[in-house]
Amino acid sequence: MQDTLIFKTPGRGTQNITRQIGDVVAASKIQTGLAHVFIKHTSASLMICENADPDVRGDVERWLTANVIDGDPMYEHDMEGPDDMSGHIRSILTGMDLTLPVTDGRLNLGTWQGIYLYEHRTSAHSRQVVVTVSAAG
Amino acid sequence: MQDTLIFKTPGRGTQNITRQIGDVVAASKIQTGLAHVFIKHTSASLMICENADPDVRGDVERWLTANVIDGDPMYEHDMEGPDDMSGHIRSILTGMDLTLPVTDGRLNLGTWQGIYLYEHRTSAHSRQVVVTVSAAG
Amino acid sequence: MQDTLIFKTPGRGTQNITRQIGDVVAASKIQTGLAHVFIKHTSASLMICENADPDVRGDVERWLTANVIDGDPMYEHDMEGPDDMSGHIRSILTGMDLTLPVTDGRLNLGTWQGIYLYEHRTSAHSRQVVVTVSAAG
Repeated sequence: MQDTLIFKTPGRGTQNITRQIGDVVAASKIQTGLAHVFIKHTSASLMICENADPDVRGDVERWLTANVIDGDPMYEHDMEGPDDMSGHIRSILTGMDLTLPVTDGRLNLGTWQGIYLYEHRTSAHSRQVVVTVSAAG
Repeated sequence: MQDTLIFKTPGRGTQNITRQIGDVVAASKIQTGLAHVFIKHTSASLMICENADPDVRGDVERWLTANVIDGDPMYEHDMEGPDDMSGHIRSILTGMDLTLPVTDGRLNLGTWQGIYLYEHRTSAHSRQVVVTVSAAG
Repeated sequence: MQDTLIFKTPGRGTQNITRQIGDVVAASKIQTGLAHVFIKHTSASLMICENADPDVRGDVERWLTANVIDGDPMYEHDMEGPDDMSGHIRSILTGMDLTLPVTDGRLNLGTWQGIYLYEHRTSAHSRQVVVTVSAAG
Protein backbone atom coordinates (compact mmCIF):
# COMPACT_ATOMS: atom_id res chain seq x y z
CA MET A 1 0.00 0.00 0.00
CA GLN A 2 1.29 3.39 -0.98
CA ASP A 3 -0.12 6.89 -0.55
CA THR A 4 1.11 10.43 -1.17
CA LEU A 5 0.34 13.05 1.45
CA ILE A 6 0.63 16.81 0.92
CA PHE A 7 1.65 19.08 3.77
CA LYS A 8 1.54 22.87 3.74
CA THR A 9 4.36 24.42 5.75
CA PRO A 10 4.31 28.00 7.06
CA GLY A 11 8.09 28.32 6.60
CA ARG A 12 11.09 27.10 8.60
CA GLY A 13 10.19 24.77 11.46
CA THR A 14 8.84 21.34 12.35
CA GLN A 15 5.38 19.79 12.26
CA ASN A 16 4.37 16.50 13.85
CA ILE A 17 3.06 14.16 11.13
CA THR A 18 2.91 10.97 13.24
CA ARG A 19 -0.90 10.79 13.17
CA GLN A 20 -1.10 11.13 9.37
CA ILE A 21 1.52 8.39 8.85
CA GLY A 22 -0.31 6.21 11.39
CA ASP A 23 -3.56 6.67 9.43
CA VAL A 24 -1.92 5.23 6.29
CA VAL A 25 -0.62 2.28 8.35
CA ALA A 26 -4.13 1.64 9.74
CA ALA A 27 -5.69 1.82 6.26
CA SER A 28 -3.17 -0.75 4.96
CA LYS A 29 -4.48 -3.41 7.42
CA ILE A 30 -0.89 -4.69 7.61
CA GLN A 31 -0.21 -6.16 11.06
CA THR A 32 3.57 -6.77 11.02
CA GLY A 33 5.91 -4.94 8.70
CA LEU A 34 7.40 -1.58 7.88
CA ALA A 35 6.24 1.92 7.10
CA HIS A 36 8.54 3.90 4.83
CA VAL A 37 8.24 7.67 4.66
CA PHE A 38 9.94 9.74 1.95
CA ILE A 39 9.93 13.48 1.29
CA LYS A 40 10.31 14.41 -2.39
CA HIS A 41 12.34 17.57 -1.79
CA THR A 42 15.90 18.64 -1.02
CA SER A 43 15.29 21.54 1.36
CA ALA A 44 12.82 19.87 3.71
CA SER A 45 13.44 16.68 5.67
CA LEU A 46 12.01 14.00 7.96
CA MET A 47 13.17 13.59 11.54
CA ILE A 48 12.38 11.45 14.55
CA CYS A 49 12.50 13.71 17.60
CA GLU A 50 11.37 13.92 21.20
CA ASN A 51 7.65 14.75 21.14
CA ALA A 52 6.95 16.13 24.62
CA ASP A 53 8.81 19.43 25.04
CA PRO A 54 8.72 21.84 22.07
CA ASP A 55 11.97 23.35 23.36
CA VAL A 56 13.75 20.22 22.08
CA ARG A 57 12.83 21.06 18.48
CA GLY A 58 13.71 24.69 19.20
CA ASP A 59 17.16 23.60 20.38
CA VAL A 60 17.66 21.40 17.28
CA GLU A 61 16.82 24.51 15.23
CA ARG A 62 19.27 26.63 17.26
CA TRP A 63 22.02 24.03 16.73
CA LEU A 64 21.39 23.93 12.96
CA THR A 65 21.25 27.74 12.75
CA ALA A 66 24.60 27.96 14.54
CA ASN A 67 26.30 25.17 12.58
CA VAL A 68 24.84 25.46 9.07
CA ILE A 69 25.04 29.20 8.50
CA ASP A 70 22.37 30.81 6.30
CA GLY A 71 24.02 32.76 3.51
CA ASP A 72 27.52 31.58 4.46
CA PRO A 73 29.94 33.45 2.15
CA MET A 74 31.64 30.13 1.32
CA TYR A 75 28.53 28.97 -0.59
CA GLU A 76 28.65 29.27 -4.39
CA HIS A 77 24.96 28.37 -4.74
CA ASP A 78 23.35 31.61 -3.53
CA MET A 79 20.82 32.68 -6.16
CA GLU A 80 17.74 31.28 -4.39
CA GLY A 81 18.26 33.14 -1.13
CA PRO A 82 20.36 32.70 2.03
CA ASP A 83 18.15 29.86 3.36
CA ASP A 84 18.38 27.65 0.24
CA MET A 85 21.89 26.19 0.39
CA SER A 86 21.70 25.85 4.17
CA GLY A 87 18.36 24.09 3.62
CA HIS A 88 20.04 21.51 1.37
CA ILE A 89 22.75 20.80 3.97
CA ARG A 90 20.21 20.65 6.84
CA SER A 91 18.15 18.16 4.79
CA ILE A 92 21.17 15.94 4.18
CA LEU A 93 22.15 15.97 7.87
CA THR A 94 18.65 15.19 9.15
CA GLY A 95 17.61 12.87 6.30
CA MET A 96 14.88 12.61 3.68
CA ASP A 97 13.78 8.99 4.26
CA LEU A 98 12.66 7.12 7.37
CA THR A 99 11.62 3.51 7.88
CA LEU A 100 9.60 2.56 10.96
CA PRO A 101 8.39 -0.77 12.32
CA VAL A 102 4.71 -1.73 12.21
CA THR A 103 3.55 -4.10 14.97
CA ASP A 104 -0.01 -5.25 15.73
CA GLY A 105 -1.27 -3.01 12.95
CA ARG A 106 0.28 0.18 14.35
CA LEU A 107 3.48 2.24 14.15
CA ASN A 108 5.79 0.82 16.81
CA LEU A 109 7.49 4.00 18.04
CA GLY A 110 8.95 4.73 21.45
CA THR A 111 6.79 6.67 23.90
CA TRP A 112 8.76 9.88 23.35
CA GLN A 113 9.26 9.59 19.60
CA GLY A 114 7.39 11.66 17.04
CA ILE A 115 7.80 11.86 13.26
CA TYR A 116 8.40 15.43 12.14
CA LEU A 117 8.41 17.10 8.77
CA TYR A 118 11.13 19.74 8.95
CA GLU A 119 10.78 22.71 6.59
CA HIS A 120 14.14 24.41 6.11
CA ARG A 121 13.09 27.24 3.75
CA THR A 122 11.91 30.43 5.45
CA SER A 123 8.87 30.83 3.18
CA ALA A 124 5.72 28.69 3.02
CA HIS A 125 5.86 25.57 0.83
CA SER A 126 3.73 22.60 -0.17
CA ARG A 127 5.60 19.32 0.44
CA GLN A 128 4.91 15.84 -0.92
CA VAL A 129 5.48 12.81 1.33
CA VAL A 130 5.18 9.26 -0.04
CA VAL A 131 4.22 6.60 2.52
CA THR A 132 4.69 2.91 1.65
CA VAL A 133 3.55 0.15 4.01
CA SER A 134 4.79 -3.39 3.45
CA ALA A 135 4.28 -6.69 5.27
CA ALA A 136 7.26 -8.56 6.73
CA GLY A 137 7.79 -12.24 6.21
CA MET B 1 9.63 -11.79 11.15
CA GLN B 2 9.99 -9.23 13.91
CA ASP B 3 11.73 -9.30 17.26
CA THR B 4 12.49 -6.79 20.01
CA LEU B 5 15.91 -6.91 21.63
CA ILE B 6 16.85 -5.20 24.88
CA PHE B 7 20.34 -3.82 25.40
CA LYS B 8 21.76 -2.52 28.67
CA THR B 9 24.16 0.37 28.18
CA PRO B 10 26.73 1.46 30.78
CA GLY B 11 26.41 5.12 29.75
CA ARG B 12 27.73 7.13 26.82
CA GLY B 13 29.50 5.08 24.17
CA THR B 14 29.04 2.45 21.50
CA GLN B 15 28.41 -1.29 21.55
CA ASN B 16 28.65 -3.64 18.59
CA ILE B 17 25.26 -5.34 18.06
CA THR B 18 25.99 -6.92 14.66
CA ARG B 19 25.90 -10.49 16.03
CA GLN B 20 22.54 -10.02 17.73
CA ILE B 21 20.98 -8.55 14.56
CA GLY B 22 22.51 -11.39 12.55
CA ASP B 23 20.92 -13.93 14.90
CA VAL B 24 17.45 -12.52 14.13
CA VAL B 25 18.22 -12.69 10.41
CA ALA B 26 19.30 -16.34 10.74
CA ALA B 27 16.17 -17.23 12.74
CA SER B 28 13.97 -15.68 10.02
CA LYS B 29 15.24 -18.18 7.40
CA ILE B 30 14.90 -15.38 4.84
CA GLN B 31 17.52 -15.77 2.10
CA THR B 32 17.20 -12.51 0.11
CA GLY B 33 15.73 -9.38 1.57
CA LEU B 34 16.21 -6.66 4.13
CA ALA B 35 16.84 -6.34 7.86
CA HIS B 36 15.46 -3.18 9.43
CA VAL B 37 16.74 -2.05 12.82
CA PHE B 38 15.00 0.64 14.87
CA ILE B 39 15.81 2.10 18.28
CA LYS B 40 12.77 3.29 20.23
CA HIS B 41 14.49 6.23 21.91
CA THR B 42 15.56 9.81 21.15
CA SER B 43 18.88 9.98 23.01
CA ALA B 44 20.45 6.76 21.72
CA SER B 45 21.03 5.90 18.08
CA LEU B 46 22.16 3.28 15.56
CA MET B 47 25.30 3.71 13.48
CA ILE B 48 27.27 1.78 10.90
CA CYS B 49 30.95 2.28 11.70
CA GLU B 50 34.37 0.83 11.04
CA ASN B 51 34.67 -2.28 13.23
CA ALA B 52 38.43 -2.90 13.46
CA ASP B 53 40.05 -0.04 15.38
CA PRO B 54 38.22 1.17 18.51
CA ASP B 55 39.93 4.54 18.06
CA VAL B 56 37.55 5.21 15.16
CA ARG B 57 34.55 5.16 17.52
CA GLY B 58 36.60 7.20 19.98
CA ASP B 59 37.21 9.82 17.29
CA VAL B 60 33.52 9.90 16.34
CA GLU B 61 32.80 10.54 20.02
CA ARG B 62 35.44 13.30 20.14
CA TRP B 63 33.94 14.94 17.05
CA LEU B 64 30.44 14.84 18.55
CA THR B 65 31.69 16.14 21.91
CA ALA B 66 33.39 19.06 20.15
CA ASN B 67 30.49 19.87 17.81
CA VAL B 68 27.37 19.13 19.88
CA ILE B 69 28.25 20.77 23.18
CA ASP B 70 26.87 19.20 26.36
CA GLY B 71 25.00 21.83 28.37
CA ASP B 72 25.39 24.48 25.66
CA PRO B 73 23.94 27.72 27.13
CA MET B 74 21.89 28.18 23.93
CA TYR B 75 19.72 25.16 24.84
CA GLU B 76 16.31 25.90 26.39
CA HIS B 77 15.69 22.22 27.19
CA ASP B 78 18.05 21.78 30.15
CA MET B 79 16.06 20.18 32.97
CA GLU B 80 17.21 16.61 32.36
CA GLY B 81 20.94 17.31 32.59
CA PRO B 82 23.66 18.64 30.27
CA ASP B 83 23.84 15.38 28.25
CA ASP B 84 20.12 15.22 27.39
CA MET B 85 19.67 17.88 24.72
CA SER B 86 23.04 17.06 23.16
CA GLY B 87 21.89 13.41 23.18
CA HIS B 88 18.81 14.34 21.13
CA ILE B 89 20.91 16.21 18.53
CA ARG B 90 23.53 13.43 18.39
CA SER B 91 20.73 10.89 17.80
CA ILE B 92 19.27 12.94 14.94
CA LEU B 93 22.69 13.34 13.28
CA THR B 94 23.63 9.65 13.55
CA GLY B 95 20.10 8.26 12.99
CA MET B 96 17.62 6.00 14.76
CA ASP B 97 16.80 3.59 11.92
CA LEU B 98 18.98 1.45 9.66
CA THR B 99 18.09 -0.91 6.81
CA LEU B 100 20.60 -3.54 5.71
CA PRO B 101 20.62 -6.06 2.87
CA VAL B 102 20.19 -9.78 3.54
CA THR B 103 21.87 -12.10 1.01
CA ASP B 104 22.18 -15.90 1.14
CA GLY B 105 20.48 -15.86 4.53
CA ARG B 106 22.95 -13.45 6.15
CA LEU B 107 23.52 -9.73 6.71
CA ASN B 108 25.40 -8.48 3.66
CA LEU B 109 27.73 -5.93 5.25
CA GLY B 110 31.15 -4.81 4.10
CA THR B 111 34.18 -6.41 5.73
CA TRP B 112 34.86 -3.35 7.88
CA GLN B 113 31.27 -2.48 8.76
CA GLY B 114 29.71 -3.08 12.15
CA ILE B 115 26.30 -2.11 13.50
CA TYR B 116 26.62 -0.09 16.69
CA LEU B 117 24.13 0.98 19.32
CA TYR B 118 25.26 4.44 20.41
CA GLU B 119 24.21 5.52 23.91
CA HIS B 120 24.36 9.32 24.22
CA ARG B 121 23.29 9.70 27.87
CA THR B 122 26.07 9.56 30.44
CA SER B 123 24.17 7.22 32.77
CA ALA B 124 23.24 3.56 32.23
CA HIS B 125 20.04 2.85 30.31
CA SER B 126 18.00 -0.06 28.96
CA ARG B 127 17.30 0.37 25.23
CA GLN B 128 14.73 -1.36 23.02
CA VAL B 129 15.66 -2.24 19.45
CA VAL B 130 13.04 -3.63 17.02
CA VAL B 131 14.40 -5.85 14.23
CA THR B 132 12.20 -6.63 11.22
CA VAL B 133 13.34 -9.03 8.49
CA SER B 134 11.47 -9.12 5.20
CA ALA B 135 11.90 -11.04 1.96
CA ALA B 136 12.51 -9.18 -1.31
CA GLY B 137 10.56 -9.89 -4.49
CA MET C 1 15.34 -8.80 -6.57
CA GLN C 2 18.86 -7.91 -5.51
CA ASP C 3 21.90 -6.79 -7.44
CA THR C 4 25.39 -5.57 -6.57
CA LEU C 5 26.80 -2.67 -8.57
CA ILE C 6 30.45 -1.64 -8.64
CA PHE C 7 31.42 2.00 -9.01
CA LYS C 8 34.91 3.32 -9.63
CA THR C 9 35.53 6.65 -7.95
CA PRO C 10 38.31 9.06 -8.94
CA GLY C 11 38.74 10.24 -5.34
CA ARG C 12 36.79 12.62 -3.12
CA GLY C 13 33.54 13.86 -4.63
CA THR C 14 30.06 12.84 -5.72
CA GLN C 15 28.71 10.89 -8.67
CA ASN C 16 25.07 10.65 -9.71
CA ILE C 17 23.97 6.98 -9.63
CA THR C 18 20.23 7.56 -10.08
CA ARG C 19 20.14 5.98 -13.55
CA GLN C 20 21.94 2.81 -12.44
CA ILE C 21 19.58 2.36 -9.46
CA GLY C 22 16.62 3.02 -11.77
CA ASP C 23 17.85 0.28 -14.12
CA VAL C 24 17.71 -2.28 -11.30
CA VAL C 25 14.20 -1.12 -10.42
CA ALA C 26 13.11 -1.50 -14.07
CA ALA C 27 14.64 -5.00 -14.30
CA SER C 28 12.77 -6.08 -11.16
CA LYS C 29 9.37 -5.46 -12.86
CA ILE C 30 8.07 -4.41 -9.44
CA GLN C 31 5.35 -1.75 -9.83
CA THR C 32 4.76 -0.58 -6.25
CA GLY C 33 7.32 -0.99 -3.51
CA LEU C 34 10.71 0.11 -2.30
CA ALA C 35 14.26 0.28 -3.59
CA HIS C 36 16.94 -0.05 -0.91
CA VAL C 37 20.49 1.08 -1.66
CA PHE C 38 23.43 0.18 0.58
CA ILE C 39 27.12 0.99 0.30
CA LYS C 40 29.42 -1.65 1.82
CA HIS C 41 32.07 0.79 3.05
CA THR C 42 32.70 3.19 5.93
CA SER C 43 34.46 6.03 4.13
CA ALA C 44 32.03 6.48 1.22
CA SER C 45 28.32 7.21 1.55
CA LEU C 46 24.98 7.65 -0.21
CA MET C 47 23.18 10.96 -0.35
CA ILE C 48 20.03 12.43 -1.85
CA CYS C 49 20.92 15.89 -3.13
CA GLU C 50 19.72 18.61 -5.48
CA ASN C 51 20.55 17.45 -9.02
CA ALA C 52 20.49 20.64 -11.10
CA ASP C 53 23.33 22.92 -9.96
CA PRO C 54 26.70 21.24 -9.34
CA ASP C 55 27.55 24.12 -6.98
CA VAL C 56 25.15 22.56 -4.47
CA ARG C 57 27.36 19.46 -4.17
CA GLY C 58 30.38 21.75 -4.09
CA ASP C 59 28.89 23.64 -1.17
CA VAL C 60 28.07 20.40 0.68
CA GLU C 61 31.73 19.48 0.21
CA ARG C 62 32.86 22.90 1.46
CA TRP C 63 30.64 22.54 4.55
CA LEU C 64 32.04 19.07 5.31
CA THR C 65 35.61 20.24 4.72
CA ALA C 66 35.08 23.10 7.16
CA ASN C 67 33.25 21.07 9.82
CA VAL C 68 34.93 17.64 9.67
CA ILE C 69 38.59 18.60 9.55
CA ASP C 70 40.96 16.30 7.63
CA GLY C 71 43.84 15.28 9.88
CA ASP C 72 42.33 16.97 12.93
CA PRO C 73 44.93 16.63 15.73
CA MET C 74 42.19 15.36 18.07
CA TYR C 75 41.89 12.13 16.04
CA GLU C 76 43.66 9.05 17.45
CA HIS C 77 43.00 7.02 14.28
CA ASP C 78 45.53 8.63 11.92
CA MET C 79 47.58 5.81 10.35
CA GLU C 80 45.64 5.64 7.08
CA GLY C 81 46.08 9.29 6.14
CA PRO C 82 44.40 12.60 7.02
CA ASP C 83 41.29 11.85 4.91
CA ASP C 84 40.47 8.49 6.54
CA MET C 85 39.02 9.42 9.92
CA SER C 86 37.23 12.44 8.45
CA GLY C 87 35.88 10.04 5.80
CA HIS C 88 34.36 7.83 8.53
CA ILE C 89 32.66 10.82 10.20
CA ARG C 90 31.44 12.21 6.85
CA SER C 91 29.96 8.80 6.01
CA ILE C 92 28.12 8.61 9.33
CA LEU C 93 26.70 12.14 8.93
CA THR C 94 25.52 11.61 5.34
CA GLY C 95 24.52 7.94 5.71
CA MET C 96 25.32 4.58 4.15
CA ASP C 97 21.78 3.32 3.42
CA LEU C 98 18.86 4.85 1.55
CA THR C 99 15.34 3.58 0.91
CA LEU C 100 13.30 5.07 -1.92
CA PRO C 101 9.70 4.56 -3.07
CA VAL C 102 8.93 2.70 -6.29
CA THR C 103 5.68 3.75 -8.03
CA ASP C 104 4.35 2.63 -11.44
CA GLY C 105 7.53 0.59 -11.92
CA ARG C 106 9.92 3.53 -11.42
CA LEU C 107 11.83 5.35 -8.69
CA ASN C 108 9.46 7.96 -7.28
CA LEU C 109 11.88 10.82 -6.59
CA GLY C 110 11.21 14.53 -6.54
CA THR C 111 12.07 16.51 -9.67
CA TRP C 112 15.22 17.97 -8.10
CA GLN C 113 16.39 14.85 -6.27
CA GLY C 114 19.32 12.73 -7.37
CA ILE C 115 20.98 9.75 -5.69
CA TYR C 116 24.70 10.34 -5.24
CA LEU C 117 27.56 8.09 -4.27
CA TYR C 118 29.88 10.24 -2.16
CA GLU C 119 33.53 9.19 -2.06
CA HIS C 120 35.26 10.69 0.98
CA ARG C 121 38.78 9.33 0.43
CA THR C 122 41.08 11.48 -1.68
CA SER C 123 42.37 8.54 -3.75
CA ALA C 124 40.49 6.43 -6.31
CA HIS C 125 38.48 3.48 -4.98
CA SER C 126 36.16 0.73 -6.16
CA ARG C 127 32.88 0.77 -4.21
CA GLN C 128 30.21 -1.94 -3.88
CA VAL C 129 26.56 -0.92 -3.75
CA VAL C 130 23.82 -3.49 -3.04
CA VAL C 131 20.38 -2.66 -4.47
CA THR C 132 17.32 -4.55 -3.22
CA VAL C 133 13.88 -4.00 -4.73
CA SER C 134 10.81 -5.32 -2.91
CA ALA C 135 7.09 -5.17 -3.57
CA ALA C 136 4.75 -3.46 -1.07
CA GLY C 137 1.53 -5.09 0.07
